Amino acid sequence: MNYFLDNKSDYEIVEELIQGITSSYSHLIHRLERTHTVVRNNIDQDKVVLISGGGSGHEPAHIGYLGKNMLDVAVIGEIFEPPTAAEIYQAIKATYNGQGSLLIIKNFDKDVKAFLQAEEMAVAEGMKVSHVIVNDDCSIERATFKKRRRGVAGTVFVHKVLGSAAQAGMSLDELHALGESLIREIKTLGVAFSSNQTIGSKNKQYELKNNEMYFGIGIHGEPGYRIEEMKSSERIALELTNKLVSQYKRGYLNEVAILVNGLGATPLLNLAVFTNQVIQLLEIEDIQVSFKILGNFMTSYDTDGLSLTLLNIYDQQILDLLESQTDAISWNH
Amino acid sequence: MNYFLDNKSDYEIVEELIQGITSSYSHLIHRLERTHTVVRNNIDQDKVVLISGGGSGHEPAHIGYLGKNMLDVAVIGEIFEPPTAAEIYQAIKATYNGQGSLLIIKNFDKDVKAFLQAEEMAVAEGMKVSHVIVNDDCSIERATFKKRRRGVAGTVFVHKVLGSAAQAGMSLDELHALGESLIREIKTLGVAFSSNQTIGSKNKQYELKNNEMYFGIGIHGEPGYRIEEMKSSERIALELTNKLVSQYKRGYLNEVAILVNGLGATPLLNLAVFTNQVIQLLEIEDIQVSFKILGNFMTSYDTDGLSLTLLNIYDQQILDLLESQTDAISWNH
Repeated sequence: MNYFLDNKSDYEIVEELIQGITSSYSHLIHRLERTHTVVRNNIDQDKVVLISGGGSGHEPAHIGYLGKNMLDVAVIGEIFEPPTAAEIYQAIKATYNGQGSLLIIKNFDKDVKAFLQAEEMAVAEGMKVSHVIVNDDCSIERATFKKRRRGVAGTVFVHKVLGSAAQAGMSLDELHALGESLIREIKTLGVAFSSNQTIGSKNKQYELKNNEMYFGIGIHGEPGYRIEEMKSSERIALELTNKLVSQYKRGYLNEVAILVNGLGATPLLNLAVFTNQVIQLLEIEDIQVSFKILGNFMTSYDTDGLSLTLLNIYDQQILDLLESQTDAISWNH
Repeated sequence: MNYFLDNKSDYEIVEELIQGITSSYSHLIHRLERTHTVVRNNIDQDKVVLISGGGSGHEPAHIGYLGKNMLDVAVIGEIFEPPTAAEIYQAIKATYNGQGSLLIIKNFDKDVKAFLQAEEMAVAEGMKVSHVIVNDDCSIERATFKKRRRGVAGTVFVHKVLGSAAQAGMSLDELHALGESLIREIKTLGVAFSSNQTIGSKNKQYELKNNEMYFGIGIHGEPGYRIEEMKSSERIALELTNKLVSQYKRGYLNEVAILVNGLGATPLLNLAVFTNQVIQLLEIEDIQVSFKILGNFMTSYDTDGLSLTLLNIYDQQILDLLESQTDAISWNH
């Protein structure tokens, strides 16, 4: 049971979420009337429009990344469900300025299907629209031993890098190419210490005992690949760091950006201690950590857990784009 | 048990916390060598220095409020324990620039004692030092039926308003006077849906059943004044809003700022829904809500719960000071 919200439908929860955030930050963002699309006030007319979105329950994603040098448009679905193709199409159309629109999609079947269908509808009307699909999750599917390649917290790095590049005047084609190369260099792995509560129509998908943790969980409460007895922060840092470093070609990783993401119920103190340990582990491996950010960026509602994202700084331009200033409310750098 | 951190002493936890945050945000803040004091890079020399601090476990307080138009210095104590007078005195001395230093103290006996002793030591050496004591908590002591008047989340409003005023060039005496009048207009009340975990040497002070909530809890895991069966967000919003509005003289409250604070494990989605309901309740009472902010500002480690703070906008200058830009990492407006 979720007493706090259990008298509400999914639709009502999302309505109140959007009202609460847009009325609090009305100097920065507003909702397109009669939609669940939220946009920056005064989108620049001389740059490519950056559009992302997905289910609710991942706050502050994606509404918290609307701002200068980040997203222009967030299309918000119901709890853990992407928006419909029609909603995304409407958002593209309503914000189209002739420079083109880039969709940043998280790699979940439903999300990809809805966003690509919307793109097709817009392109059929003569609009220039392109997309990138983020697939940073390195978790393994238990049944098939295949990498899941979902889009998770690393998506926020994509928002920031492409957002800054769009603001700097990159064309739609250039942004698409940058996005494709960038995404190949982003890897994420998460661990949960508890499942999320039931919210709206979405039930919890697994249970953990008090002293258990689950490696490789997803951001919609999906189970992971291995349950273990709970370990100290150092051991968890070691497991995630090693697994992620091993995703890159040996010797290829010399300089990285890291993003330490709380899954919704993780105190900042724990994230800070964990971050410190990850930095030390990477430096022992002679990998320079040039950019660090920690907080709740891509949550799984109220899950106690965290994820670590590595981004290989394969080009110094990437670091400059990460470091540019933004007024997006949830990018705290 | 707190598996994540249970192999560490209080001291080690705080060391790693400070290392994790300062190395992540080294472009903004740094630690004074061999201390637990963190300061802004390049403190302005032509303004009063603003100093706050307190125990660890309340992150992002106070380290997240270092920045332009907010704090200059955060003196960090052990878990739920204030820094010592000697540590605070060293921080005052190391950052003194001749314009005077203002201490922003939360009203807990130990904090007040340590900060005032440090002030006395600094004044004895000829430094200009003054202080304000924040006492926004309207919770009631069960044994005595007296208001507790602790300093809690409303302290963050004090950091912002006095920080902006100091940046604008107000003198130490003017800041002190502004602080005294401001603090009288700030009221906070919290509710917990779970206690915090044991952390370091600090054990949890109460237990709640799955369907219980506790009104009036403190930010160090202190018990509240009444346990009730868990209610919907609307009913909680009604209880907190009514209690807080009743703290002001009837008819006196026409315009407010609100701060909705997560206690560490509360998802942003819940805070947003709650914020929306509070705004509606205040507007029904013809109270204009001119400023809203929501997030984890003053936590009680990993407590699932929230607090609501009202600040009476008794002067439009207060609103301007709240709205000024800052680069402090945890003020998301």
